[in-house]
Amino acid sequence: MPHIALPTDDPGIRGLFRFRPETAAPLNGLAEILLRGDSTLSRGERELIAAYVSSLNRCRFCHSSHAAFAAAQLPEGMELVRQTCENPATAPVSPKLRALLDIAAAVQRGGQEVSTGHVTAARAEGATDLEIHDTVLIAAAFCMFNRYVDGLGTHAPDDPAVYAAVAEQIVTHGYGSTTPAAEHSGPRP
Amino acid sequence: MPHIALPTDDPGIRGLFRFRPETAAPLNGLAEILLRGDSTLSRGERELIAAYVSSLNRCRFCHSSHAAFAAAQLPEGMELVRQTCENPATAPVSPKLRALLDIAAAVQRGGQEVSTGHVTAARAEGATDLEIHDTVLIAAAFCMFNRYVDGLGTHAPDDPAVYAAVAEQIVTHGYGSTTPAAEHSGPRP
Repeated sequence: MPHIALPTDDPGIRGLFRFRPETAAPLNGLAEILLRGDSTLSRGERELIAAYVSSLNRCRFCHSSHAAFAAAQLPEGMELVRQTCENPATAPVSPKLRALLDIAAAVQRGGQEVSTGHVTAARAEGATDLEIHDTVLIAAAFCMFNRYVDGLGTHAPDDPAVYAAVAEQIVTHGYGSTTPAAEHSGPRP
Repeated sequence: MPHIALPTDDPGIRGLFRFRPETAAPLNGLAEILLRGDSTLSRGERELIAAYVSSLNRCRFCHSSHAAFAAAQLPEGMELVRQTCENPATAPVSPKLRALLDIAAAVQRGGQEVSTGHVTAARAEGATDLEIHDTVLIAAAFCMFNRYVDGLGTHAPDDPAVYAAVAEQIVTHGYGSTTPAAEHSGPRP
């Protein structure tokens, strides 16, 4: 049961977005730019970074969500997501993406854990400064989203079909498309 | 030295905002709502939560910044900020704020660390669901900001006067006022 009274029984962050649409707007805006905006990293690769960090933080709702969003946008589908979250060192991803996943794991442990060595290794595999920046910010943002979702004790459905259905909507319409506008939200205690 | 080439030598998150104004906009939007928007928690109290979480994450830039912003908006000034970050259990803050700081510390350790006990304790001291929500999201957001700033190896000035000067601008004009619009940013590699 969530730690606070939410206006609907929407799971995970979706219930929180309905409780507080004012903060939902910039949170969805950030996700839209980082995960779906113009980038030399594919949308699938960026969702994979989000799913990986969420798995390191053991956030079941965010991991299941972004694993589904990544699988829907990667040619290799859910099997690659599973292999990557299990062990990025042996997963069949590109050397550049593997180096960026290393940076993301360091960020998850803490900002000071990112070393010059991590960054040099990513650059040696062809990562640009913008790709390194966005990887750090995606990993940092999921350290926020994961804590937000779990810190308020929200519910995570078990059925993979729930996440697959949301994936379809996100892939087609983007972040924010599953959240009501401010005027639809219920009263807050 | 920062891990990526920034267009200016602005310290901490300010250099990152100039590098990537597209993400600066929702990040500033989130900070503006959480730390300065309408709330039954004072702006000083909310900045104190941000400064406390940043000190737990040992992020010197964010801690120094939000300590200065808190001090500028609390009647008790910097001495209360110092006492709170040293030990919130003995700092002369209200019982409600102390219970919210406990929640924030749990969020900093991880989302699953927030227990029903933490929330019940805060509610017993008069905290509302919205105050509990915003405390969790402020703490989670600073787990992002701290990782973003340190994960990219940005510079933190030693001189407290630098932070006090920014505090004056933030208190008067809000978040976003110290960041250029997108068109002023330099080219990116």
